[in-house]
Parts: sequence; structure tokens; C-alpha cells
Amino acid sequence: MKLIVMTGIPGSGSTTVLKNVLKKVDYLHLNYGDMMIKIAKEKKIAEDRDNLRKLSPDVQKEIQKDAAKAIKEQSESENVIVDTHCTIKTPSGFLPGLPKWVLEELVPDAFILVEADPDEILIRRISDETRTRDRQRVSEIVMHQEMNRAAAMSYATITGATVQILENHDNQLDEIVSNMIETLKI
Amino acid sequence: MKLIVMTGIPGSGSTTVLKNVLKKVDYLHLNYGDMMIKIAKEKKIAEDRDNLRKLSPDVQKEIQKDAAKAIKEQSESENVIVDTHCTIKTPSGFLPGLPKWVLEELVPDAFILVEADPDEILIRRISDETRTRDRQRVSEIVMHQEMNRAAAMSYATITGATVQILENHDNQLDEIVSNMIETLKI
Amino acid sequence: MKLIVMTGIPGSGSTTVLKNVLKKVDYLHLNYGDMMIKIAKEKKIAEDRDNLRKLSPDVQKEIQKDAAKAIKEQSESENVIVDTHCTIKTPSGFLPGLPKWVLEELVPDAFILVEADPDEILIRRISDETRTRDRQRVSEIVMHQEMNRAAAMSYATITGATVQILENHDNQLDEIVSNMIETLKI
Repeated sequence: MKLIVMTGIPGSGSTTVLKNVLKKVDYLHLNYGDMMIKIAKEKKIAEDRDNLRKLSPDVQKEIQKDAAKAIKEQSESENVIVDTHCTIKTPSGFLPGLPKWVLEELVPDAFILVEADPDEILIRRISDETRTRDRQRVSEIVMHQEMNRAAAMSYATITGATVQILENHDNQLDEIVSNMIETLKI
Repeated sequence: MKLIVMTGIPGSGSTTVLKNVLKKVDYLHLNYGDMMIKIAKEKKIAEDRDNLRKLSPDVQKEIQKDAAKAIKEQSESENVIVDTHCTIKTPSGFLPGLPKWVLEELVPDAFILVEADPDEILIRRISDETRTRDRQRVSEIVMHQEMNRAAAMSYATITGATVQILENHDNQLDEIVSNMIETLKI
Repeated sequence: MKLIVMTGIPGSGSTTVLKNVLKKVDYLHLNYGDMMIKIAKEKKIAEDRDNLRKLSPDVQKEIQKDAAKAIKEQSESENVIVDTHCTIKTPSGFLPGLPKWVLEELVPDAFILVEADPDEILIRRISDETRTRDRQRVSEIVMHQEMNRAAAMSYATITGATVQILENHDNQLDEIVSNMIETLKI
């Protein structure tokens, strides 16, 4: 059984890629943030993402760990893809989505980073009217993808997992879907 | 209470930024190297930086840890900014300024990396007559800042802290000072 | 006594550099992969690299650790250079050559990354008829060297070792050999 972590910055198109991959492979899809909320609800300490963010760092850390444990358990009986963020761009900087205490519970087989050219990402974000996203410069997109790569290699060092970078260019969805399926099969 | 680590390569102007930030916020400023010397003096094992460098790696490691513990303790009763090096460019390569055993004691809230364009850094170094600095090529400056970003993401993975990159361009001191103050307030 | 890890992607020319360095310094040369096979043979669980790869991840991890311990022991009585891969480009992504459990046994003094310009590497790979290597695009070579730098800084954070990047340009073998010898002497 495999446990794969999939990430991509807003506009990378990772959600679309994942949706199309899941039609063709036998993998359970879990969202890390949703799992955290589920656990927070069960423990009756938070009802949604906003509540969660307001908890003390120590409590948040406990919930992060418990979510990782729950995902790991699921992955023992079936193949699992977790979608989450490699790093989150916050007003106080890049926050690692998978800090050490999460990695030590999760121990995935691979991290998949869905990337695209910064100008593609910029155009996709402008076209995306369903979400309000902060307008960013190309240089910021370049930096976010660079920081994600560095973070991913640090995650890999701690877990021994591989880091796969897949390019999701405009009008080439079939290509990335088949590349990702290749990665899942190994 | 907050504990912030601030770094910048020589010529990044981090010292000037810090001086100006400290006029406007209620933070105690500690220098990591000074704290190490203070501890080495108290233990009567070294008098200055040169003595310190000649000690065995194990002894240096102990002093590094003790300095981190002392800073952490201070940060329990007041907001602290520690200034130090993300990586130090030595003749044997880039030395991590905050190895794992330091991070595990320090556990800061954020790492702030003050950066500038390589040509700005080069010109500032040439103009800076108060210190003797090795002349470096632009490509070396680019590499040092790149290695610092990678190191910072590794530090963030271990501690869960954010990594904030702030640009310190010529004649834009007010901008970075206000950006840094924003980061400190979150 | 020193323990140095030396890496370079295929076509970087690290093997040639090492051969020439070893003529001039008193260092024992060990290959990490060979050490793993030696240990697997002694334990009678694998005979060659192919057997080794087919073992369960847990067994491979044990052998990795034992190989690191054996190298560390050797380095207590003589200077050692270990050659290995910083990351290995596999079909499922970049695999860290020195995951955490290896680093914790090995604790080297320095990581040396032998690099070259992507076009130099491409031409060298094409000219190299002794090995069958996957043809790669320049962008993939750039990415592999970038991921190796990030991995190396993560290795350095865990161990406290330095990361030295040495450029091995065409027709400049003497230069990198003397630069590497400088690094070994510090």
C-alpha cells in the first residue's frame, strides 16, 4: 500500500490533475486540512478552519499529529493520496505544511509537487473567479515554487521519500495525468 | 511573547534594518555570537570569538546549545529578536548557523531573511570601508542567498516556524522597516 | 581525522576529480553503495545492487545504517572520503541519498558537491560511451543540481557539516583538484 502527498500552489492546477488521476487509479483521496477539522470536531475543540487557526500552537500541533496518524492508519489498508500544501504563504512568511512532527507520523512514499510556469499560474489566478486570491507578482510565484522545492527536499531527508516534480502546462492535462499515474504505480 | 531570528549576508543591510526596526517596536535585541561568548566566558573556557573557534567541536556544540537555551529563556518574558547567520561562508563551505541541536532549543516563531539584489550587495561591500571583506563575484552572492533559503526551509521544517524573505533595496529602507514591523506584529 | 562526503550528478566529472585528488592526499576512498553491498553479502541477504533494491524498505534501511556505521568506524583511524549520490533521480522522483537515519550515523565534516554547467554535463554524457545514461534536457540537469543543493543544506542542518560547492569546468581539472585539496586540509 502506498501513501502519496500531493501539493501545488494556488493556480498550479493540482486539484484538476488530482480529479482526473483519481478516475483512473484505485487511490483514496484525503485532504489534510479536512482531516484536521474532523479530528478537532471529534475532540470538540473546533468547528471549522477559522476556529482551528485561533487555537494555541500546542493544541494545533496535537491535531496536526493526530490527523497524520489517522491518515497513516488509512494507508495501511488502501492506497492513499493526501492533498495539502508544501508551504503556505502567510503574512509572516512561508509556513511549512509538513513540519517534522507531522512527517514522523506520516512517513509517505513520495511527495508530488505540481508546478507550472509562473506566467501560466498568474493567468490562471486572474481567470479564477471562484476564489479571491491575492494578486502576486511573477517573482513571488517563482519564489514560492523555489521554497516548496527546498521544503520538499527537507521533508524527503527526514522521511526517505522521493520528491517528484510534475509540470502542469496549459493544454497538456493528459500528459501530467499519465506522468502522475506512472509515479503512483512504481 | 515572540522569538524571531533575523539573518542577512554581509552587505544585505540587515544591521541597519534591525537598528531602525528596534526604534519602533518593543523587542529585546540579542546577538547569537555574543551570547555564545558570554556563556564561554562564564564557563571560563574562552574569552573571545577567536578562542571559541579553536575549541573542540563538541565543546562548541555545548556552548551553542547553552546560548540557545539562554535566549529561549529570555524570550519567555519579553519579545526577542536574535540576529545571527543563516549560513556562514567558510573556506570549507557553507556552515549552517542554526544546526538541529540549536533549533531544538531555540524553536523560534519566524526566520526573517534580509536579502538584496546581488549587484546592490556587491556595491555596498565595496563602499563599506569599516570592514575587510573578501571580494566576491555576483554568482557567489546569488549562491549564498540561495543556500540560505534552502537552509531556512530546513530550519522551518524542524521547528514549524515561518520563513519571511524581506527585500532591502537601495533607498527603500522605510519599506523594509515597515514590512518587518508587520511581520513582528502577527 | 576527517570524514568527507563527495557527490556529483552523472556527467559532473566527480569520479575523475576524486581519482586525481586521491593521488595527492592521504585519504581512504570508500563508495557508499559498495559498502552497502559488502554488508548485505556478509549478512547473506543480497549479492549485488539489483538484489539490494528488491529488499523491503525496512531491510534496506538497516543495511544503509550499518554501512554508515562501518564507514564512521573507519574514519576514526584514518581520513575518509565517501563517494555517493546527494539525490538519485528515479522514476518516482528525487530520492535522498543520505536520509536522516544515515546522517545520524555518519555525521561527516563536510559535503562536497561537484557541479558543472548544464551544457558541459550534457556534452559529457553524450560523449560517455561506457555507460548508458538517460538523455536529459538541460532543464532537468539544472533542476537536479538545484535539488541536490537543497538536500545538502538539509543534511548540513541535521549534522552541522559544511556544504562546499566546487565547479568542475572543462579543461580546468587542476583548479578543482587544488580547490578540493584546500577543503580537505581545513
